[in-house]
Amino acid sequence: MDNNTICSISTAPGHGAISIIRISGKESIKIVNELFKAHNKNKLSSKNINKVVLGNIIYKHQTIDEVLVTAFKSPKSYTGEDMVEISCHGSAYIQSKIIQALIDNGCRTAQKGEFTMRAFLNGKLDLSQAEGVANLIASENEKSHRIAMKQMRGGFSNEIKNLRKKFIKFAALIELELDFSQEDVEFANRQELLILINNIENKIAKLANSFKLGNVIKNGIPITIVGSPNSGKSTLLNQILNEERAIVSNIKGTTRDTIEENIIVNGYKFKFIDTAGLRNTKDEIEKIGISKTYKKISESAFILYMIDKTDFNQIEIEKEILNIQKKMQSNDSLIVLGNKHDLHKQDIVFKKIKNINIINISAKNGDKIDVILKTIISKVQSWGDINNEIIIINQRHFESLINTLKSIGDIKEGLKQNISGELLSIDIKNCLEYLGQITGEITNNNLLDSIFRDFCIGK
Amino acid sequence: MDNNTICSISTAPGHGAISIIRISGKESIKIVNELFKAHNKNKLSSKNINKVVLGNIIYKHQTIDEVLVTAFKSPKSYTGEDMVEISCHGSAYIQSKIIQALIDNGCRTAQKGEFTMRAFLNGKLDLSQAEGVANLIASENEKSHRIAMKQMRGGFSNEIKNLRKKFIKFAALIELELDFSQEDVEFANRQELLILINNIENKIAKLANSFKLGNVIKNGIPITIVGSPNSGKSTLLNQILNEERAIVSNIKGTTRDTIEENIIVNGYKFKFIDTAGLRNTKDEIEKIGISKTYKKISESAFILYMIDKTDFNQIEIEKEILNIQKKMQSNDSLIVLGNKHDLHKQDIVFKKIKNINIINISAKNGDKIDVILKTIISKVQSWGDINNEIIIINQRHFESLINTLKSIGDIKEGLKQNISGELLSIDIKNCLEYLGQITGEITNNNLLDSIFRDFCIGK
Repeated sequence: MDNNTICSISTAPGHGAISIIRISGKESIKIVNELFKAHNKNKLSSKNINKVVLGNIIYKHQTIDEVLVTAFKSPKSYTGEDMVEISCHGSAYIQSKIIQALIDNGCRTAQKGEFTMRAFLNGKLDLSQAEGVANLIASENEKSHRIAMKQMRGGFSNEIKNLRKKFIKFAALIELELDFSQEDVEFANRQELLILINNIENKIAKLANSFKLGNVIKNGIPITIVGSPNSGKSTLLNQILNEERAIVSNIKGTTRDTIEENIIVNGYKFKFIDTAGLRNTKDEIEKIGISKTYKKISESAFILYMIDKTDFNQIEIEKEILNIQKKMQSNDSLIVLGNKHDLHKQDIVFKKIKNINIINISAKNGDKIDVILKTIISKVQSWGDINNEIIIINQRHFESLINTLKSIGDIKEGLKQNISGELLSIDIKNCLEYLGQITGEITNNNLLDSIFRDFCIGK
Repeated sequence: MDNNTICSISTAPGHGAISIIRISGKESIKIVNELFKAHNKNKLSSKNINKVVLGNIIYKHQTIDEVLVTAFKSPKSYTGEDMVEISCHGSAYIQSKIIQALIDNGCRTAQKGEFTMRAFLNGKLDLSQAEGVANLIASENEKSHRIAMKQMRGGFSNEIKNLRKKFIKFAALIELELDFSQEDVEFANRQELLILINNIENKIAKLANSFKLGNVIKNGIPITIVGSPNSGKSTLLNQILNEERAIVSNIKGTTRDTIEENIIVNGYKFKFIDTAGLRNTKDEIEKIGISKTYKKISESAFILYMIDKTDFNQIEIEKEILNIQKKMQSNDSLIVLGNKHDLHKQDIVFKKIKNINIINISAKNGDKIDVILKTIISKVQSWGDINNEIIIINQRHFESLINTLKSIGDIKEGLKQNISGELLSIDIKNCLEYLGQITGEITNNNLLDSIFRDFCIGK
């Protein structure tokens, strides 16, 4: 984190009509003026800030390209520093020559996310907002885009800052008690504090819970299709994908390994995982497939358990479902599909298993497949309201919130046991630290490095 | 070629920090104003032309992205029309949403090269300059970049336009004669005309000849390495490439198919082609390899003929070289390499072949390999002077110049045979048409379509 002037290609790599090269730092306007000859002869200066200027980049007496150049003046720029953007032709040769010319004139190449890191360090956005920028660029569907957009604009940060402010007020009162400790006064009414802390705890728990939704929206909703061999799992997947990517055949156990397919429905990304069947087998390779299936079950948000209604063993299936339920994240995540309903209309009745969601389908004909998707989407929607609630989408924030909740537990325990203000103060400071890490009020170089190295080059 | 307002993503496809979306046409500012809410509340108008404005793209009540928007006013824009550039975050989702929003508000997506085609149709650049833009974006080394840059800036166009002007003057005098045909006067002195036409012919021939250089600079200099099996061809290629990509072994005939490798040396792109050996064989697959070798020889700018100085049959080799010379583009393009010179210092002396370029090398030790490259580069440089001469780089221009030369031949023949002004006038018109096609003074929809469909999207 030096003060060098940095430069980078900021558009996607490869062949395009236009590329953007960004320069940021104290020397950026001076360095570009060394290379850039505007057609109107004017130098970049305070007179043409934010104005697009046409001219040539000339390097070692060779015209590299005719470009559009825009200068931005600190603090009114993305990074908060002086900045220049060069819009050049999208040839790899031209891009590399311009970067070379900038380096020869005193720039260094920017590290991943360094522009955004500088924006953070210069107070243009907080850490959670900076992570929102990365989420926004990575967003590939409507829902993840909407959450990232809200995050970048500070919705989540404000919530955290407000909670933190309440903690600080709380902490100040305790500190005041410590200052007057010999007087044995109590500035912070313990009963009121407990109400306040319960209130904060609820809000943080709600934020932490929202990560369940945020995570699947960011990374996709993992859905494992499981069931006895030849029950029609691959056919179902193909129907959903509308294409023949999984191998479908009538030989039991064809799908030995797991096959994963992503689709976007109603702005949600679904990761469908087709698995090996679960029947008892002596085939070693197939055994590995089955153990993989159980692993996928434990990692999935939903399990579609396929039954061939024309051919199933009631006892075996109930046993298998009970086994699956042990591995599942939540009981609500299992959906039983009664396949080949067109051939066998009678309902499946379970003896040992209660409150189970059954949908009768015909994978082959595509019957009621929309019901499966609608059921899953309505369950996902019950996890939180993307439009009106704040949804956590970064693992890092989730971990900080969980740590905050733990400290809150300590504070509450302390209040119950009437511990000294001194000890209470330590737990409150922990809370403040965890919350501060989210927005970057509390930070360190390692944390920053680990966050920004996930950014793309040029951002 | 309608007058619709067009839009396109103009940066390379894929994941980047920033993407540029371009809009061009009469409605472009109006359409963007429907979607764009500047933070400073100002609409895009004549007041903020060429100024970068920060704000949000809002579509169906959803904020799609925070963007920088710049409006350009006709005729001072790339296309010569009103234009807007939107600089957004480089997420595929955001890009597609903004394009969607623009289409919903009256844009249509631009075809390949349509921005540049409009620039041509609006007189911002001529056809040869437009092709220069495509060449510039495609340029991947110093030399092709330099020629494309010159072409885009109109160097070549001016030369053609000047030659064409002379023809037009010439044609006018002939036309004048036709008007006064009953008077039997001769406005165009045939002797002076012949001098002029010889002058023009020389210049056009020189331009056409420069395509030999322009073509290899644009597409790479094809160099075929050939010689008896196990003479060290693959070892040489590996030395040149500094990496082990070709299969090297001691078994004769290992390289059955041709292997091609590109490198850039001194700003020139070289296409090295390693071939099957040329020995007599009964192996059918190897025979195919050998016939491929002869094909490569006929297409190559240079042939490196490898001889293992420690093990060769003088008579066979001389016979082979004579065979190769029959297939070559020019006698000057053969370079004989005396390999394993470290093991056998005696020079090879040919009996039947004269004036042959021999370089003694050791492929294994890398001795004198630089001499090979220097020899080739100096030969290429003798074809033309990139810095001071105009070099033709487009096949289309070459063909038009060849057609022009043919018409000039017809004119000269006509002058010699003292044909009527009427017939002469037809040949001159042909010349004018061929030259006019280069810069686009003469054009048609088919020609334009075939030129611009080779452009990239967004340019």
